[in-house]
Amino acid sequence: MIDSQNDSPSAARAKIRAGKLSRPTSGVAPGYVQANIAILPSKYAFDFLLFCQRNPTPCPLLAVSDVGSFRLPDLGDDIDIRSDLGRYRILKDGVPSEEVDDIQHLWNDDFVVFALGCSFSFEEALLREGLTLHHHTHKTGVAMYLTNIPTKSAGRFSGNTVVSMRAFDPADAITAIKVTSRFPRVHGAPIHIGMPKMIGISDIRETFGGFDAHIEEDQLPLFWACGVTAQLAIEHAAPPIAIVHSPGYMLVTDVLNTSLEN
Amino acid sequence: MIDSQNDSPSAARAKIRAGKLSRPTSGVAPGYVQANIAILPSKYAFDFLLFCQRNPTPCPLLAVSDVGSFRLPDLGDDIDIRSDLGRYRILKDGVPSEEVDDIQHLWNDDFVVFALGCSFSFEEALLREGLTLHHHTHKTGVAMYLTNIPTKSAGRFSGNTVVSMRAFDPADAITAIKVTSRFPRVHGAPIHIGMPKMIGISDIRETFGGFDAHIEEDQLPLFWACGVTAQLAIEHAAPPIAIVHSPGYMLVTDVLNTSLEN
Repeated sequence: MIDSQNDSPSAARAKIRAGKLSRPTSGVAPGYVQANIAILPSKYAFDFLLFCQRNPTPCPLLAVSDVGSFRLPDLGDDIDIRSDLGRYRILKDGVPSEEVDDIQHLWNDDFVVFALGCSFSFEEALLREGLTLHHHTHKTGVAMYLTNIPTKSAGRFSGNTVVSMRAFDPADAITAIKVTSRFPRVHGAPIHIGMPKMIGISDIRETFGGFDAHIEEDQLPLFWACGVTAQLAIEHAAPPIAIVHSPGYMLVTDVLNTSLEN
Repeated sequence: MIDSQNDSPSAARAKIRAGKLSRPTSGVAPGYVQANIAILPSKYAFDFLLFCQRNPTPCPLLAVSDVGSFRLPDLGDDIDIRSDLGRYRILKDGVPSEEVDDIQHLWNDDFVVFALGCSFSFEEALLREGLTLHHHTHKTGVAMYLTNIPTKSAGRFSGNTVVSMRAFDPADAITAIKVTSRFPRVHGAPIHIGMPKMIGISDIRETFGGFDAHIEEDQLPLFWACGVTAQLAIEHAAPPIAIVHSPGYMLVTDVLNTSLEN
Protein backbone atom coordinates (compact mmCIF):
# COMPACT_ATOMS: atom_id res chain seq x y z
CA MET A 1 0.00 0.00 0.00
CA ILE A 2 1.31 3.42 -0.89
CA ASP A 3 1.37 5.74 2.11
CA SER A 4 -0.87 8.76 1.58
CA GLN A 5 -0.80 10.30 5.04
CA ASN A 6 1.47 13.03 3.77
CA ASP A 7 0.01 13.53 0.31
CA SER A 8 -1.48 16.85 -0.67
CA PRO A 9 -5.11 16.50 -1.81
CA SER A 10 -4.12 16.88 -5.47
CA ALA A 11 -1.34 14.29 -5.09
CA ALA A 12 -3.87 11.91 -3.49
CA ARG A 13 -6.32 12.51 -6.35
CA ALA A 14 -3.55 11.89 -8.89
CA LYS A 15 -2.84 8.52 -7.29
CA ILE A 16 -6.54 7.62 -7.20
CA ARG A 17 -6.92 8.71 -10.83
CA ALA A 18 -3.97 6.49 -11.79
CA GLY A 19 -5.44 3.52 -9.89
CA LYS A 20 -2.61 3.62 -7.34
CA LEU A 21 -4.70 4.27 -4.24
CA SER A 22 -7.59 1.84 -4.31
CA ARG A 23 -8.63 1.83 -0.66
CA PRO A 24 -11.07 3.87 1.43
CA THR A 25 -9.91 7.47 1.86
CA SER A 26 -10.07 7.66 5.66
CA GLY A 27 -6.74 9.16 6.77
CA VAL A 28 -5.79 10.36 3.27
CA ALA A 29 -4.68 14.03 3.05
CA PRO A 30 -5.52 14.84 6.67
CA GLY A 31 -6.86 18.33 7.30
CA TYR A 32 -8.80 18.45 4.03
CA VAL A 33 -12.52 18.04 3.42
CA GLN A 34 -13.69 14.78 1.89
CA ALA A 35 -17.05 14.71 0.14
CA ASN A 36 -19.94 12.35 -0.55
CA ILE A 37 -20.70 12.29 -4.28
CA ALA A 38 -23.96 11.77 -6.18
CA ILE A 39 -24.28 12.01 -9.96
CA LEU A 40 -27.75 12.27 -11.46
CA PRO A 41 -29.41 12.93 -14.83
CA SER A 42 -30.36 16.62 -15.19
CA LYS A 43 -34.05 15.76 -15.15
CA TYR A 44 -33.63 14.79 -11.48
CA ALA A 45 -31.24 17.61 -10.58
CA PHE A 46 -33.74 20.25 -9.45
CA ASP A 47 -35.61 17.88 -7.15
CA PHE A 48 -32.39 16.52 -5.66
CA LEU A 49 -30.96 20.01 -5.16
CA LEU A 50 -34.25 20.95 -3.48
CA PHE A 51 -34.06 17.78 -1.34
CA CYS A 52 -30.61 18.84 -0.12
CA GLN A 53 -31.79 22.42 0.45
CA ARG A 54 -34.71 21.15 2.54
CA ASN A 55 -32.58 18.64 4.48
CA PRO A 56 -29.30 20.45 5.04
CA THR A 57 -28.33 18.51 8.16
CA PRO A 58 -28.10 15.04 6.54
CA CYS A 59 -27.38 16.50 3.06
CA PRO A 60 -25.08 19.54 3.42
CA LEU A 61 -24.22 20.67 -0.12
CA LEU A 62 -20.62 21.69 -0.69
CA ALA A 63 -20.76 22.10 -4.49
CA VAL A 64 -22.86 21.30 -7.54
CA SER A 65 -21.51 21.05 -11.09
CA ASP A 66 -22.93 22.74 -14.13
CA VAL A 67 -25.06 20.38 -16.24
CA GLY A 68 -22.72 18.07 -18.15
CA SER A 69 -19.58 19.16 -16.32
CA PHE A 70 -17.32 16.68 -14.54
CA ARG A 71 -15.47 19.56 -12.84
CA LEU A 72 -15.98 20.93 -9.33
CA PRO A 73 -13.67 23.99 -9.36
CA ASP A 74 -14.75 25.15 -5.90
CA LEU A 75 -13.35 21.93 -4.44
CA GLY A 76 -10.19 21.61 -6.53
CA ASP A 77 -8.97 22.99 -9.87
CA ASP A 78 -7.99 19.65 -11.38
CA ILE A 79 -10.92 17.53 -10.19
CA ASP A 80 -12.31 15.15 -12.82
CA ILE A 81 -15.17 13.35 -11.14
CA ARG A 82 -15.07 10.60 -13.81
CA SER A 83 -11.83 9.23 -12.35
CA ASP A 84 -11.16 10.89 -8.99
CA LEU A 85 -13.06 8.49 -6.76
CA GLY A 86 -11.45 5.17 -5.86
CA ARG A 87 -14.69 3.28 -6.31
CA TYR A 88 -18.13 4.14 -7.67
CA ARG A 89 -21.48 2.49 -7.09
CA ILE A 90 -23.86 2.42 -10.05
CA LEU A 91 -27.60 2.45 -9.34
CA LYS A 92 -30.08 1.44 -12.04
CA ASP A 93 -33.70 2.39 -11.33
CA GLY A 94 -32.58 3.00 -7.75
CA VAL A 95 -31.06 -0.45 -7.28
CA PRO A 96 -27.29 -0.79 -6.71
CA SER A 97 -26.13 -2.83 -9.69
CA GLU A 98 -22.32 -2.79 -9.75
CA GLU A 99 -19.16 -1.11 -8.46
CA VAL A 100 -16.47 0.26 -10.78
CA ASP A 101 -13.25 2.22 -10.34
CA ASP A 102 -13.76 4.66 -13.21
CA ILE A 103 -16.87 6.07 -14.94
CA GLN A 104 -15.40 7.55 -18.13
CA HIS A 105 -17.35 5.00 -20.18
CA LEU A 106 -20.59 5.91 -18.40
CA TRP A 107 -20.21 9.70 -18.53
CA ASN A 108 -23.06 11.57 -20.08
CA ASP A 109 -23.36 15.26 -20.97
CA ASP A 110 -26.68 15.30 -19.17
CA PHE A 111 -25.19 14.47 -15.73
CA VAL A 112 -25.06 16.83 -12.75
CA VAL A 113 -22.57 16.20 -9.93
CA PHE A 114 -23.42 16.89 -6.27
CA ALA A 115 -20.78 16.99 -3.51
CA LEU A 116 -22.01 16.75 0.08
CA GLY A 117 -20.14 17.25 3.34
CA CYS A 118 -19.01 14.18 5.28
CA SER A 119 -18.42 13.44 8.96
CA PHE A 120 -14.66 12.95 8.44
CA SER A 121 -14.36 16.74 8.83
CA PHE A 122 -15.94 16.93 12.26
CA GLU A 123 -14.29 13.69 13.42
CA GLU A 124 -10.95 15.36 12.86
CA ALA A 125 -12.09 18.22 15.10
CA LEU A 126 -13.24 15.73 17.77
CA LEU A 127 -9.86 13.95 17.72
CA ARG A 128 -8.12 17.32 18.01
CA GLU A 129 -10.11 17.96 21.20
CA GLY A 130 -8.67 14.74 22.61
CA LEU A 131 -11.81 12.64 22.23
CA THR A 132 -11.52 8.93 21.37
CA LEU A 133 -13.53 7.51 18.46
CA HIS A 134 -13.92 3.77 18.86
CA HIS A 135 -14.21 3.07 15.12
CA HIS A 136 -11.01 5.06 14.48
CA THR A 137 -9.04 3.27 17.20
CA HIS A 138 -10.25 -0.07 15.84
CA LYS A 139 -9.93 0.90 12.17
CA THR A 140 -13.47 -0.08 11.32
CA GLY A 141 -16.49 1.86 9.98
CA VAL A 142 -18.91 3.98 11.97
CA ALA A 143 -22.17 2.35 13.14
CA MET A 144 -25.23 3.60 11.27
CA TYR A 145 -29.00 3.29 11.75
CA LEU A 146 -32.10 3.98 9.73
CA THR A 147 -34.32 6.12 11.99
CA ASN A 148 -38.03 6.92 11.97
CA ILE A 149 -37.22 10.62 11.42
CA PRO A 150 -38.71 11.59 8.07
CA THR A 151 -36.86 13.88 5.69
CA LYS A 152 -38.70 16.66 3.90
CA SER A 153 -39.39 15.19 0.49
CA ALA A 154 -38.75 17.02 -2.80
CA GLY A 155 -40.34 15.60 -5.93
CA ARG A 156 -39.47 11.91 -5.99
CA PHE A 157 -36.76 12.19 -3.34
CA SER A 158 -37.89 11.09 0.12
CA GLY A 159 -37.20 8.69 2.96
CA ASN A 160 -36.22 8.57 6.60
CA THR A 161 -32.99 9.92 8.04
CA VAL A 162 -29.93 7.70 8.38
CA VAL A 163 -27.71 8.49 11.38
CA SER A 164 -24.19 7.59 12.39
CA MET A 165 -23.54 6.80 16.07
CA ARG A 166 -20.54 7.62 18.24
CA ALA A 167 -20.57 6.88 21.98
CA PHE A 168 -18.95 9.04 24.68
CA ASP A 169 -19.01 9.44 28.44
CA PRO A 170 -21.15 12.39 29.55
CA ALA A 171 -18.35 14.98 29.70
CA ASP A 172 -17.03 14.03 26.26
CA ALA A 173 -20.60 13.92 24.93
CA ILE A 174 -21.04 17.57 25.88
CA THR A 175 -17.70 18.43 24.26
CA ALA A 176 -18.69 16.51 21.12
CA ILE A 177 -21.93 18.48 20.87
CA LYS A 178 -20.14 21.78 21.36
CA VAL A 179 -17.46 20.98 18.78
CA THR A 180 -19.70 19.56 16.05
CA SER A 181 -22.23 22.39 16.40
CA ARG A 182 -19.51 24.60 14.90
CA PHE A 183 -19.59 22.49 11.70
CA PRO A 184 -23.10 22.86 10.24
CA ARG A 185 -21.82 22.18 6.71
CA VAL A 186 -20.70 18.69 7.71
CA HIS A 187 -23.84 17.55 9.59
CA GLY A 188 -23.40 19.85 12.62
CA ALA A 189 -24.50 18.88 16.12
CA PRO A 190 -26.03 15.46 16.79
CA ILE A 191 -29.77 15.19 16.18
CA HIS A 192 -30.30 12.82 19.12
CA ILE A 193 -28.60 11.62 22.32
CA GLY A 194 -29.39 8.56 24.42
CA MET A 195 -32.76 6.75 24.20
CA PRO A 196 -32.42 5.09 20.78
CA LYS A 197 -36.08 3.94 20.78
CA MET A 198 -37.26 7.53 20.50
CA ILE A 199 -35.88 7.68 16.97
CA GLY A 200 -37.04 4.23 15.97
CA ILE A 201 -33.95 2.20 16.88
CA SER A 202 -35.40 -0.77 18.76
CA ASP A 203 -32.10 -2.65 19.12
CA ILE A 204 -28.86 -0.66 19.22
CA ARG A 205 -26.95 -3.79 18.11
CA GLU A 206 -28.82 -3.95 14.82
CA THR A 207 -26.95 -1.48 12.67
CA PHE A 208 -27.55 -0.44 9.09
CA GLY A 209 -24.70 -0.85 6.63
CA GLY A 210 -22.55 -3.49 8.23
CA PHE A 211 -20.45 -1.90 10.99
CA ASP A 212 -21.02 -2.87 14.63
CA ALA A 213 -21.99 -0.54 17.45
CA HIS A 214 -19.76 -0.24 20.49
CA ILE A 215 -21.02 1.47 23.67
CA GLU A 216 -19.38 1.17 27.08
CA GLU A 217 -21.55 1.10 30.20
CA ASP A 218 -20.70 4.68 31.18
CA GLN A 219 -21.27 6.00 27.66
CA LEU A 220 -24.19 7.65 25.89
CA PRO A 221 -24.84 7.11 22.19
CA LEU A 222 -24.85 10.31 20.12
CA PHE A 223 -26.56 10.25 16.74
CA TRP A 224 -25.55 12.47 13.85
CA ALA A 225 -27.45 12.89 10.58
CA CYS A 226 -25.56 11.00 7.89
CA GLY A 227 -25.02 11.51 4.15
CA VAL A 228 -26.26 7.98 3.47
CA THR A 229 -29.70 9.62 3.81
CA ALA A 230 -29.09 11.09 0.34
CA GLN A 231 -28.27 7.67 -1.12
CA LEU A 232 -31.51 6.23 0.28
CA ALA A 233 -33.48 9.15 -1.17
CA ILE A 234 -31.89 8.43 -4.56
CA GLU A 235 -32.88 4.78 -4.25
CA HIS A 236 -36.46 5.94 -3.58
CA ALA A 237 -36.43 8.35 -6.54
CA ALA A 238 -35.16 5.50 -8.72
CA PRO A 239 -33.68 7.42 -11.67
CA PRO A 240 -32.76 5.14 -14.60
CA ILE A 241 -29.11 5.74 -13.70
CA ALA A 242 -27.34 7.32 -10.75
CA ILE A 243 -23.73 7.09 -9.64
CA VAL A 244 -22.55 7.53 -6.05
CA HIS A 245 -19.26 6.96 -4.22
CA SER A 246 -18.81 3.53 -2.68
CA PRO A 247 -18.95 3.77 1.12
CA GLY A 248 -15.62 5.13 2.38
CA TYR A 249 -14.30 6.04 -1.08
CA MET A 250 -14.83 9.78 -0.82
CA LEU A 251 -13.73 12.69 -3.02
CA VAL A 252 -10.59 14.26 -1.53
CA THR A 253 -10.86 18.05 -1.94
CA ASP A 254 -8.53 21.06 -1.65
CA VAL A 255 -10.81 22.66 0.96
CA LEU A 256 -9.46 22.83 4.51
CA ASN A 257 -11.65 21.28 7.21
CA THR A 258 -11.07 24.37 9.33
CA SER A 259 -12.65 26.53 6.62
CA LEU A 260 -15.99 24.82 7.34
CA GLU A 261 -15.89 25.81 11.01
CA ASN A 262 -18.26 28.55 12.15
CA MET B 1 -53.40 53.25 8.27
CA ILE B 2 -54.19 50.15 10.29
CA ASP B 3 -51.64 49.56 13.04
CA SER B 4 -49.81 46.25 12.53
CA GLN B 5 -47.12 46.55 15.18
CA ASN B 6 -48.97 44.05 17.33
CA ASP B 7 -50.29 41.74 14.64
CA SER B 8 -49.24 38.13 14.59
CA PRO B 9 -47.63 37.14 11.28
CA SER B 10 -50.78 35.32 10.14
CA ALA B 11 -52.96 38.30 11.10
CA ALA B 12 -50.63 40.58 9.10
CA ARG B 13 -50.82 38.24 6.10
CA ALA B 14 -54.61 38.15 6.37
CA LYS B 15 -54.70 41.97 6.20
CA ILE B 16 -52.30 42.01 3.26
CA ARG B 17 -54.35 39.32 1.51
CA ALA B 18 -57.51 41.40 2.00
CA GLY B 19 -55.81 44.54 0.66
CA LYS B 20 -55.95 46.22 4.08
CA LEU B 21 -52.21 46.65 4.61
CA SER B 22 -50.81 48.13 1.43
CA ARG B 23 -47.56 49.60 2.67
CA PRO B 24 -43.99 48.32 3.05
CA THR B 25 -43.72 45.65 5.75
CA SER B 26 -40.91 47.20 7.80
CA GLY B 27 -42.10 47.10 11.42
CA VAL B 28 -44.92 44.66 10.73
CA ALA B 29 -45.08 41.62 13.09
CA PRO B 30 -41.80 42.42 14.84
CA GLY B 31 -39.70 39.43 15.84
CA TYR B 32 -40.63 37.42 12.77
CA VAL B 33 -38.60 36.73 9.64
CA GLN B 34 -39.57 38.58 6.47
CA ALA B 35 -38.50 37.16 3.12
CA ASN B 36 -37.51 38.26 -0.35
CA ILE B 37 -39.60 36.45 -2.95
CA ALA B 38 -38.80 35.35 -6.50
CA ILE B 39 -41.17 33.30 -8.68
CA LEU B 40 -39.79 31.68 -11.82
CA PRO B 41 -40.86 29.21 -14.52
CA SER B 42 -39.69 25.67 -13.68
CA LYS B 43 -37.32 25.67 -16.64
CA TYR B 44 -35.25 28.29 -14.78
CA ALA B 45 -35.65 26.77 -11.33
CA PHE B 46 -32.60 24.49 -11.24
CA ASP B 47 -30.22 27.21 -12.38
CA PHE B 48 -31.66 29.76 -9.93
CA LEU B 49 -31.54 27.26 -7.05
CA LEU B 50 -27.94 26.56 -8.02
CA PHE B 51 -27.23 30.33 -8.18
CA CYS B 52 -28.51 30.68 -4.60
CA GLN B 53 -26.56 27.61 -3.47
CA ARG B 54 -23.38 29.08 -4.96
CA ASN B 55 -24.00 32.58 -3.57
CA PRO B 56 -25.47 31.96 -0.13
CA THR B 57 -24.37 35.28 1.34
CA PRO B 58 -26.41 37.56 -0.97
CA CYS B 59 -29.02 34.84 -1.70
CA PRO B 60 -29.70 32.86 1.51
CA LEU B 61 -32.50 30.43 0.71
CA LEU B 62 -35.15 30.03 3.39
CA ALA B 63 -37.62 27.90 1.42
CA VAL B 64 -38.48 26.73 -2.09
CA SER B 65 -41.94 25.58 -3.20
CA ASP B 66 -42.73 22.42 -5.08
CA VAL B 67 -43.25 23.03 -8.80
CA GLY B 68 -46.68 24.62 -9.27
CA SER B 69 -47.32 25.17 -5.56
CA PHE B 70 -48.15 28.60 -4.15
CA ARG B 71 -47.62 27.28 -0.61
CA LEU B 72 -44.53 27.62 1.59
CA PRO B 73 -45.47 25.44 4.59
CA ASP B 74 -42.06 25.83 6.25
CA LEU B 75 -42.68 29.56 6.55
CA GLY B 76 -46.38 29.53 7.48
CA ASP B 77 -49.24 27.04 7.14
CA ASP B 78 -51.67 29.43 5.48
CA ILE B 79 -49.30 31.19 3.09
CA ASP B 80 -50.69 31.74 -0.41
CA ILE B 81 -47.94 33.48 -2.32
CA ARG B 82 -50.45 34.63 -4.98
CA SER B 83 -51.94 37.14 -2.56
CA ASP B 84 -49.70 37.43 0.53
CA LEU B 85 -47.36 40.13 -0.71
CA GLY B 86 -48.54 43.72 -0.60
CA ARG B 87 -47.05 44.50 -4.00
CA TYR B 88 -45.46 42.42 -6.75
CA ARG B 89 -43.12 43.40 -9.54
CA ILE B 90 -43.57 41.61 -12.87
CA LEU B 91 -40.51 41.16 -15.08
CA LYS B 92 -40.91 40.27 -18.75
CA ASP B 93 -37.75 39.03 -20.46
CA GLY B 94 -35.88 40.39 -17.44
CA VAL B 95 -37.32 43.88 -17.72
CA PRO B 96 -39.56 45.22 -14.92
CA SER B 97 -42.88 45.85 -16.66
CA GLU B 98 -45.52 46.57 -14.01
CA GLU B 99 -46.42 46.36 -10.33
CA VAL B 100 -49.59 44.67 -9.09
CA ASP B 101 -51.06 43.84 -5.67
CA ASP B 102 -52.20 40.31 -6.49
CA ILE B 103 -51.00 37.64 -8.95
CA GLN B 104 -53.92 35.19 -8.99
CA HIS B 105 -54.55 36.04 -12.64
CA LEU B 106 -50.89 35.42 -13.52
CA TRP B 107 -50.44 32.19 -11.59
CA ASN B 108 -49.18 29.25 -13.55
CA ASP B 109 -48.82 25.61 -12.54
CA ASP B 110 -45.28 25.73 -13.87
CA PHE B 111 -44.07 28.34 -11.34
CA VAL B 112 -41.57 27.71 -8.54
CA VAL B 113 -41.43 30.07 -5.54
CA PHE B 114 -38.16 30.99 -3.82
CA ALA B 115 -38.02 32.73 -0.42
CA LEU B 116 -34.71 34.35 0.56
CA GLY B 117 -33.62 35.82 3.88
CA CYS B 118 -33.68 39.59 4.32
CA SER B 119 -31.67 42.05 6.41
CA PHE B 120 -34.72 43.01 8.52
CA SER B 121 -33.86 39.98 10.69
CA PHE B 122 -30.33 41.09 11.53
CA GLU B 123 -31.35 44.75 11.84
CA GLU B 124 -33.67 43.74 14.65
CA ALA B 125 -30.71 42.06 16.38
CA LEU B 126 -28.60 45.22 15.89
CA LEU B 127 -31.32 47.44 17.41
CA ARG B 128 -31.61 45.01 20.33
CA GLU B 129 -27.87 45.55 20.97
CA GLY B 130 -28.56 49.28 21.27
CA LEU B 131 -27.12 50.26 17.88
CA THR B 132 -28.70 53.10 15.91
CA LEU B 133 -29.67 52.57 12.28
CA HIS B 134 -29.93 55.90 10.49
CA HIS B 135 -32.47 54.70 7.95
CA HIS B 136 -34.69 53.35 10.74
CA THR B 137 -34.53 56.55 12.78
CA HIS B 138 -35.36 58.57 9.66
CA LYS B 139 -37.94 56.08 8.32
CA THR B 140 -36.31 55.81 4.92
CA GLY B 141 -34.78 52.89 2.98
CA VAL B 142 -31.27 51.52 3.33
CA ALA B 143 -28.57 52.79 0.94
CA MET B 144 -27.52 50.20 -1.65
CA TYR B 145 -24.66 49.92 -4.17
CA LEU B 146 -23.80 47.77 -7.14
CA THR B 147 -20.26 46.53 -6.47
CA ASN B 148 -17.56 45.06 -8.71
CA ILE B 149 -17.71 41.78 -6.75
CA PRO B 150 -18.81 39.06 -9.17
CA THR B 151 -21.24 36.38 -8.11
CA LYS B 152 -20.64 32.76 -9.10
CA SER B 153 -22.87 32.30 -12.11
CA ALA B 154 -25.21 29.34 -12.61
CA GLY B 155 -26.61 28.77 -16.08
CA ARG B 156 -28.03 32.12 -17.22
CA PHE B 157 -27.97 33.65 -13.73
CA SER B 158 -25.02 35.98 -13.15
CA GLY B 159 -24.04 39.51 -12.24
CA ASN B 160 -22.19 41.51 -9.61
CA THR B 161 -23.12 41.68 -5.94
CA VAL B 162 -25.43 44.38 -4.62
CA VAL B 163 -24.69 45.54 -1.08
CA SER B 164 -26.59 47.50 1.54
CA MET B 165 -24.65 50.01 3.63
CA ARG B 166 -25.01 50.93 7.30
CA ALA B 167 -22.54 53.32 8.97
CA PHE B 168 -21.31 53.03 12.56
CA ASP B 169 -18.56 54.43 14.77
CA PRO B 170 -15.69 51.94 15.22
CA ALA B 171 -16.94 50.36 18.46
CA ASP B 172 -20.43 49.88 17.08
CA ALA B 173 -18.96 48.61 13.79
CA ILE B 174 -17.22 45.82 15.68
CA THR B 175 -20.44 45.00 17.54
CA ALA B 176 -22.37 45.01 14.25
CA ILE B 177 -19.90 42.52 12.75
CA LYS B 178 -20.07 40.26 15.80
CA VAL B 179 -23.87 40.32 15.90
CA THR B 180 -24.53 39.81 12.18
CA SER B 181 -21.95 37.02 11.91
CA ARG B 182 -24.39 34.98 13.99
CA PHE B 183 -27.02 35.28 11.24
CA PRO B 184 -25.58 33.56 8.16
CA ARG B 185 -29.07 32.77 6.81
CA VAL B 186 -29.87 36.48 6.53
CA HIS B 187 -26.66 37.70 4.84
CA GLY B 188 -24.35 37.20 7.85
CA ALA B 189 -21.37 39.44 8.54
CA PRO B 190 -20.58 42.40 6.26
CA ILE B 191 -18.51 41.58 3.19
CA HIS B 192 -16.59 44.87 3.32
CA ILE B 193 -15.79 47.75 5.70
CA GLY B 194 -14.44 51.22 4.88
CA MET B 195 -12.67 51.97 1.56
CA PRO B 196 -15.65 51.87 -0.82
CA LYS B 197 -13.40 52.13 -3.91
CA MET B 198 -12.00 48.65 -3.24
CA ILE B 199 -15.38 47.16 -4.13
CA GLY B 200 -16.03 49.44 -7.08
CA ILE B 201 -17.94 52.25 -5.35
CA SER B 202 -16.29 55.38 -6.69
CA ASP B 203 -18.68 57.84 -5.07
CA ILE B 204 -20.41 56.84 -1.83
CA ARG B 205 -23.16 59.40 -2.53
CA GLU B 206 -24.21 57.62 -5.71
CA THR B 207 -26.46 54.89 -4.42
CA PHE B 208 -28.32 52.20 -6.33
CA GLY B 209 -32.06 52.01 -5.87
CA GLY B 210 -33.00 55.45 -4.67
CA PHE B 211 -32.15 55.80 -0.97
CA ASP B 212 -29.44 58.21 0.16
CA ALA B 213 -26.30 57.31 2.10
CA HIS B 214 -25.65 58.93 5.46
CA ILE B 215 -22.22 58.66 7.08
CA GLU B 216 -21.01 60.85 9.96
CA GLU B 217 -17.39 61.90 10.11
CA ASP B 218 -16.48 59.44 12.87
CA GLN B 219 -18.28 56.56 11.17
CA LEU B 220 -17.17 53.73 8.91
CA PRO B 221 -19.43 52.34 6.18
CA LEU B 222 -20.17 48.60 6.53
CA PHE B 223 -21.38 46.77 3.45
CA TRP B 224 -23.61 43.70 3.62
CA ALA B 225 -24.48 41.44 0.68
CA CYS B 226 -28.07 42.19 -0.32
CA GLY B 227 -30.93 40.13 -1.75
CA VAL B 228 -31.30 42.60 -4.62
CA THR B 229 -28.36 40.65 -6.08
CA ALA B 230 -30.88 37.89 -6.87
CA GLN B 231 -33.20 40.32 -8.67
CA LEU B 232 -30.31 41.55 -10.83
CA ALA B 233 -29.35 37.97 -11.66
CA ILE B 234 -32.95 37.32 -12.72
CA GLU B 235 -32.84 40.42 -14.93
CA HIS B 236 -29.67 38.99 -16.54
CA ALA B 237 -31.24 35.55 -17.02
CA ALA B 238 -34.25 37.25 -18.63
CA PRO B 239 -36.91 34.54 -18.32
CA PRO B 240 -40.08 35.33 -20.31
CA ILE B 241 -41.82 35.99 -17.00
CA ALA B 242 -40.62 36.36 -13.42
CA ILE B 243 -42.38 37.81 -10.39
CA VAL B 244 -40.58 39.34 -7.41
CA HIS B 245 -41.67 41.35 -4.36
CA SER B 246 -41.66 45.10 -4.78
CA PRO B 247 -38.86 46.64 -2.69
CA GLY B 248 -39.95 46.74 0.95
CA TYR B 249 -43.08 44.62 0.41
CA MET B 250 -41.75 41.40 1.90
CA LEU B 251 -43.41 38.11 2.80
CA VAL B 252 -44.19 38.09 6.55
CA THR B 253 -43.48 34.58 7.87
CA ASP B 254 -44.23 32.61 11.06
CA VAL B 255 -40.50 31.95 11.62
CA LEU B 256 -38.91 33.73 14.59
CA ASN B 257 -35.86 35.87 13.80
CA THR B 258 -34.11 34.32 16.79
CA SER B 259 -34.47 30.87 15.22
CA LEU B 260 -32.04 31.98 12.48
CA GLU B 261 -29.33 32.85 15.00
CA ASN B 262 -26.33 30.54 15.20
